[in-house]
Amino acid sequence: MPHAYELIYWPGIPGRGEFIRLVLEQAGVPYTDQGVTSPDDGVQAVLGQISATNIGDAANPPPFAPPILRHGDLLISQTPNILQYLATRHGLAPADGPGLYHINGLALVALDGLSNEAHDTHHPVATELYYEDQKEESKKRAKSYIDNRLPKFLGYFERVLQGPKSGEGPWLYGGSLTYADLVLFQGLDGVKHAFPKAVEKLEKSGKYDRVFKLYNAVKEQPNIKKYLESDRRQKYGLGIWRQYPELDAE
Amino acid sequence: MPHAYELIYWPGIPGRGEFIRLVLEQAGVPYTDQGVTSPDDGVQAVLGQISATNIGDAANPPPFAPPILRHGDLLISQTPNILQYLATRHGLAPADGPGLYHINGLALVALDGLSNEAHDTHHPVATELYYEDQKEESKKRAKSYIDNRLPKFLGYFERVLQGPKSGEGPWLYGGSLTYADLVLFQGLDGVKHAFPKAVEKLEKSGKYDRVFKLYNAVKEQPNIKKYLESDRRQKYGLGIWRQYPELDAE
Repeated sequence: MPHAYELIYWPGIPGRGEFIRLVLEQAGVPYTDQGVTSPDDGVQAVLGQISATNIGDAANPPPFAPPILRHGDLLISQTPNILQYLATRHGLAPADGPGLYHINGLALVALDGLSNEAHDTHHPVATELYYEDQKEESKKRAKSYIDNRLPKFLGYFERVLQGPKSGEGPWLYGGSLTYADLVLFQGLDGVKHAFPKAVEKLEKSGKYDRVFKLYNAVKEQPNIKKYLESDRRQKYGLGIWRQYPELDAE
Repeated sequence: MPHAYELIYWPGIPGRGEFIRLVLEQAGVPYTDQGVTSPDDGVQAVLGQISATNIGDAANPPPFAPPILRHGDLLISQTPNILQYLATRHGLAPADGPGLYHINGLALVALDGLSNEAHDTHHPVATELYYEDQKEESKKRAKSYIDNRLPKFLGYFERVLQGPKSGEGPWLYGGSLTYADLVLFQGLDGVKHAFPKAVEKLEKSGKYDRVFKLYNAVKEQPNIKKYLESDRRQKYGLGIWRQYPELDAE
């Protein structure tokens, strides 16, 4: 029997696919992930989906970009959209009511601040150019990210965790682990890889203790722990979170 | 009786608030919008919500940034999140099933490509700096946007409209107008304002006829038409879509 879910994503990097993987792993749901198990087929699967001639099919519009989730005949794309689809079906978010929207809001902020903006630190001028061709601009953008944006995002999540709606325990919302916690964990993990010195300084400042406590609490979840120690967890490389020492804090 | 919905957003620009307004206007739902009716109160409302001391309340986490929607005791933030909340309640998206996710996916692509990336053309290096302090980098980023990204996004939506899942008529999904159409309209309207020459060239190329047909079809919807002619529709200014002639195509 093939698995019910298939993740279609670029091989060789955690990338945006990693947010999806963490939800599936935490939920204990088996899934097919050719990017990890069969990289050549994984590339072909992505290229077929995002081809400039793909107009979709009777059940689906064409996807714009990976990650893409296949579930039976259904194809869903865009990271926060896939997360919402999976999380509401597997106990990591309520299927309706305020929580659905609050958790989605928290996930959207974390994706913007720790994934999209982290990517832009090494590609501020043009996604189609190499980093080496926009290195000077990257230094400026990374400085702004480290000095202003990253503290702003971490400070925001610290306030969320301080607030009454986060409830008891280490989680962002309602006293239990949701996919927003997984997104915050992965975003922060990526940013720690990209800017180890900057994140160490922020951690030592003591201003974001709740955020780092949440990070460690996610890491200790049994399914996540097992996953992070497995071969399925890929190394960071030339994806969203890149370690260029010249972009890190001094 | 106060209106059930209140939009909290910066006064003086359409900005990301405009996506929300168009959904409310198309649905014919009355709403409070101090940014338009009472700009000083509107600013105070935004500042109170995004204050660095706001930790939310018993019903809500603090919002990260506007737009913010208030509905009774509930506060929802992040543009695609508010759009989904309103659209599923007012006939502009199904409340469940594949359409919910497909339409959200289309809206997310349009927001990325025509709003977020359009903003970054004049702020490629740092959001906290003035445009004038990043003008040279903006020229590079705008050229990449006009030459590569904008055609890629319009080409994508042209394929969606060509595909079987878009159905009959001018709309992106399932043969009827959804909030994804409103988002595409507003994004393209903003980009037309920012880069009039570039968009004129793309329109004349004939490669994106379905996209421009959709744009015109949204404009002719009775509620939208009335809104666009009203005082509630604000002029573009120093928001997301800015008209700097030096950034436009030659």
